[in-house]
Amino acid sequence: MTELDHITEQVLKQIDGDGFRQEGAYNLRQNGISLCHGDSEHIKIKRKEGKQGIDVYIDENTKGEYVHIPVVVSTSGIVDVVYNDFFIAPGAEVTIVAGCGIHNSGCNDSRHDGIHAFHVGKGANVRYEEKHYGEGEGSGSRILNPVTKIYLEEDAVFTLDTVQIKGVDSTIRETDVEMGENAKLYVMEKLMTHDKQVAESNMEVQMNGAGSSAQIISRSVAKGESRQVFHPKAVGSAKCSAHVQCDSIIMDQAEVSSIPEINAKHLDAAIIHEAAIGRINDEQLVKLRTLGLTEEEAEAVIIDNFLN
Amino acid sequence: MTELDHITEQVLKQIDGDGFRQEGAYNLRQNGISLCHGDSEHIKIKRKEGKQGIDVYIDENTKGEYVHIPVVVSTSGIVDVVYNDFFIAPGAEVTIVAGCGIHNSGCNDSRHDGIHAFHVGKGANVRYEEKHYGEGEGSGSRILNPVTKIYLEEDAVFTLDTVQIKGVDSTIRETDVEMGENAKLYVMEKLMTHDKQVAESNMEVQMNGAGSSAQIISRSVAKGESRQVFHPKAVGSAKCSAHVQCDSIIMDQAEVSSIPEINAKHLDAAIIHEAAIGRINDEQLVKLRTLGLTEEEAEAVIIDNFLN
Repeated sequence: MTELDHITEQVLKQIDGDGFRQEGAYNLRQNGISLCHGDSEHIKIKRKEGKQGIDVYIDENTKGEYVHIPVVVSTSGIVDVVYNDFFIAPGAEVTIVAGCGIHNSGCNDSRHDGIHAFHVGKGANVRYEEKHYGEGEGSGSRILNPVTKIYLEEDAVFTLDTVQIKGVDSTIRETDVEMGENAKLYVMEKLMTHDKQVAESNMEVQMNGAGSSAQIISRSVAKGESRQVFHPKAVGSAKCSAHVQCDSIIMDQAEVSSIPEINAKHLDAAIIHEAAIGRINDEQLVKLRTLGLTEEEAEAVIIDNFLN
Repeated sequence: MTELDHITEQVLKQIDGDGFRQEGAYNLRQNGISLCHGDSEHIKIKRKEGKQGIDVYIDENTKGEYVHIPVVVSTSGIVDVVYNDFFIAPGAEVTIVAGCGIHNSGCNDSRHDGIHAFHVGKGANVRYEEKHYGEGEGSGSRILNPVTKIYLEEDAVFTLDTVQIKGVDSTIRETDVEMGENAKLYVMEKLMTHDKQVAESNMEVQMNGAGSSAQIISRSVAKGESRQVFHPKAVGSAKCSAHVQCDSIIMDQAEVSSIPEINAKHLDAAIIHEAAIGRINDEQLVKLRTLGLTEEEAEAVIIDNFLN
């Protein structure tokens, strides 16, 4: 069992809600190196040769198992680019818990770019959870630029659940999904920015297979002078259906831009988009303040509800 | 009274629903020249010097009056670029009926670009109707690229009602609106494309004044192998509200892309967007066919209802 320092343990508590343990299939990356890892009977993790990252092989007998692959950056000034590939065998059922936390107490920027590719076999069901978090008193930025590529074969189901908790100064998210016949995609993206943070999220979902469907829900809160840009794109090239929904709350001097794109290239493509940007619900605020909460407490309750 | 040829009269019936008459304030442009025009007590039309187009002055005593400014292009191979400016005095109430029809029986492209600017004074109320239409057996294209700029002062109200009926091979629409305090904008855009037609509509609405509001409704039907792209953008830089709705029906091998953009730069900007692309309603089709309509007739009824 590898001994973990205090900062790493604290950061892990934020980004791995289930509690990170060194058992089953797992890989802990710290400051640009793979600190410890383990395999299970059905899940094997291999370090890549020639470049940073791991290959994760999930066999067809995997049912209800978890893989934990957290990343912690606690050295100021680091740029960590890592390539992780996931090969999920047909019929497998797995939950992958990723997440990255940056503790930056220095004056240099710390950055982690996780470039993930998911090759999901026929009928497999994958849940991917990713939490992003930044902390530390340093003036250096905490930067996270994840790239997520998802290839879904026939009947595959993928749930993408991403959360940016707080403390991330700059993020550019790129997500690409290609869907085969009857594949299903569920995306739940939650994002909170504050102070002068900037966040951009680009997503492109290609529904190429007949019967494929996608549900994309994005919820965000922008506080302070932060800036957010959302650009989800759903392309239907076959009989398919998609529903994209982006809701944002703006506070203070924040700015949110939502640019959803829906593109129907097939007679039987049915795609719906909804987006709304507005301030916090005044009626709810008044009600909670009547119950004795301060304005700040009332806002916190409403935001928590909105993001959860 | 200027004598009009048969083609011009037929095209006018399509683009001026109220019936074009040479009375009151009007200007008929034909094949790149101003064929005839008239003023009224409150509305004066002046030909521009140095470039094509007219200046239309609508005074503050105008109440419930119409201005008709149709454009007919019946010569194959013409490129007609015209600049029309409208100066609407504070408190005026006016309906401006524009529209352009191209009859192209030749093998060369015919194109009309109407570049319109509306300077709308405090509290004025303007309704602007614009119908686009193409016909003729020629192989030359019928091309319409309108540019519409709308400047709304305090309390001004502007209704923009545009229809592309049929027969327009290529169109790129550019619409820009700047809104002052408490200004109101209503946009109803209807567009039908067929065969290999292409249509693009870009709109940017800047809600700069406190209390400004915009309602934008876009409805389209894409048949054959036609292509449509919608890019409406609503920017809220003050306390304001906007609702953008784009609905499209695709048929045959058509393709529709909808890229709405909502951008909130102010705490009290509330902006909502909805978009949907899908095929014709199957239940309605079945019901109408049960009533004895052929498939084509049933489709025509549903499309008419959707666009009207």
